[in-house]
Amino acid sequence: MGISPLYSDYSLASSDWSSVIANEMSHVERTLQSVIDSDIVTAFDLANQLLSSGGKRIRPSLLVLSALACDRCDLDQMAYLAAATELVHMASLVHDDVIDESSERRGAATAGDRFGNKISVLGGDYLLSKAFNLLCVHGSQEILQTLSSTAVRMTESEILQASDEGDLALWEADYWRIIDGKTADFMGSCCQCGALLAGADLATCKALRGYGTQLGLAFQIIDDVLDIAGDRSLTGKEIGADLMHGKFTLPVLLALRYSEDGSLRHRLSKGSFSISEAEEIAAIVVSSGGLNEAKSVAVNCAEEAVKHISGLQSSIYTEALTALAAFVISREG
Amino acid sequence: MGISPLYSDYSLASSDWSSVIANEMSHVERTLQSVIDSDIVTAFDLANQLLSSGGKRIRPSLLVLSALACDRCDLDQMAYLAAATELVHMASLVHDDVIDESSERRGAATAGDRFGNKISVLGGDYLLSKAFNLLCVHGSQEILQTLSSTAVRMTESEILQASDEGDLALWEADYWRIIDGKTADFMGSCCQCGALLAGADLATCKALRGYGTQLGLAFQIIDDVLDIAGDRSLTGKEIGADLMHGKFTLPVLLALRYSEDGSLRHRLSKGSFSISEAEEIAAIVVSSGGLNEAKSVAVNCAEEAVKHISGLQSSIYTEALTALAAFVISREG
Repeated sequence: MGISPLYSDYSLASSDWSSVIANEMSHVERTLQSVIDSDIVTAFDLANQLLSSGGKRIRPSLLVLSALACDRCDLDQMAYLAAATELVHMASLVHDDVIDESSERRGAATAGDRFGNKISVLGGDYLLSKAFNLLCVHGSQEILQTLSSTAVRMTESEILQASDEGDLALWEADYWRIIDGKTADFMGSCCQCGALLAGADLATCKALRGYGTQLGLAFQIIDDVLDIAGDRSLTGKEIGADLMHGKFTLPVLLALRYSEDGSLRHRLSKGSFSISEAEEIAAIVVSSGGLNEAKSVAVNCAEEAVKHISGLQSSIYTEALTALAAFVISREG
Repeated sequence: MGISPLYSDYSLASSDWSSVIANEMSHVERTLQSVIDSDIVTAFDLANQLLSSGGKRIRPSLLVLSALACDRCDLDQMAYLAAATELVHMASLVHDDVIDESSERRGAATAGDRFGNKISVLGGDYLLSKAFNLLCVHGSQEILQTLSSTAVRMTESEILQASDEGDLALWEADYWRIIDGKTADFMGSCCQCGALLAGADLATCKALRGYGTQLGLAFQIIDDVLDIAGDRSLTGKEIGADLMHGKFTLPVLLALRYSEDGSLRHRLSKGSFSISEAEEIAAIVVSSGGLNEAKSVAVNCAEEAVKHISGLQSSIYTEALTALAAFVISREG
């Protein structure tokens, strides 16, 4: 996947965005390890499995980069709040896996697979409660309100997504609302909270939130692209898993424009699909040009993200945010 | 079930505890209705079904009574915080129903039954997020920390309960810890938050928290008693449902003391039971005296609860708290 020329002038390679905050993210990782500690062995085991199964830690990184792009701030407080954002994300993943009955994520067995759905449902609740508790102890009123409103929007969007499942017309109407609510708004909030933590002015908070929101749209669209045409060994997911669950994402919706005889629409009207049907549809989405058009949309969002922060004082952290935008649209897993 | 003589001197009948705060609880109910509003129709429908299926509203009532027992406070703020406690409770109920695969609660179809487990898992997350959002907007730092710590303990206890399922020895070791975490600590927190809201001093906050915690123990033990020998038309639940799920509660644990030949212990070692097996065991628990002894323990807890608030300035609200303690141990559903 090509990286937009917009980024070619920057000194930081897209893959280097994370090295800029390596120390701070080690601090976040240690904080995550310490906060998931629990007297209840199963609660700790589940959280620990989720934590050690990796992940890109995009949300805490956004909070950290945004805070550091603004000014110095209390590093412990930053680590606690960044850890809280990852816990909210982990909670949503573990519940997503339960409801999608996934048995694999990031190439490893899911929590549901190892602990059963019962413990996974409760484990998600534990992580979410723990996240809120961290926020309550370490966050300002404004940070709390920002992240708790975002959590409400996330869950509403997940409900919208689940109720739209299998219905193409609903997905055509709601796709942007779903991805804004479940991914983009959260990433925007992480950036805004970083800025708030550093005591940034309103314009800077808005700029960083704008960056995070557009980055989140790009991130989610690329997720949807990888679902159609990703390398399973890198994504750790089945090809066409979204289609199998009746989720009609942007590459599919754009492919419909090129199916003039209505055959793709007719095919999709079935609602949900077997693995082989999903693979066939994915192939049509690729050959029709829908996939490439979705990639272009993601690139546009990433470019918009970078524009939002163009007015900020330039630093290694704003460069890392720019590199992260390039990384998001070039990632393969 | 007899009411302890301790309460006979009070002027308020046990059933009248709620009439004292009827106006305030109407305010809470309107607040609940307004805060569950959502653009996402399914999110609203699920929350609305849960809300309209009733419930005793014990937790918000505890917050309201505690606040009013201390002093005047902002009624809107009180209603928002009280509503938040009920939303946390509703969230835990909807997830409990998913993991227990109950199809009936309070005599009506559960959310899982009507909306499917997927929407129910997400709906619980929505209610929990909404509750935290309300707390963040309307609560002080101290209230937030109190209730968010309690939410963590609740989820930990639910995980402990789920991991102990079917293992009698674990239940013997963990019963009190489970009911303290999942019910008593939360009720104690509701009382403490009412006191905090009214600006009460530390001793009063502790007294009310102590009351709520003991009341919560009594409440949960009576729940466990009703599971063994309640009137299904009043409880809305199957007899022996806990046993069927491998939950060994106080009446069962006490009945073991009277089964000198070890036959009950042997029987329980199977771990989980059919409806008819559960009914047979329930009958043994009743005839052995385990059930009555559990009731006595609940009565003791309710008496302890009332002792905790004996030093507070007497008012119609402290009388209602006393009447509530009597109600909790006399309730039949």
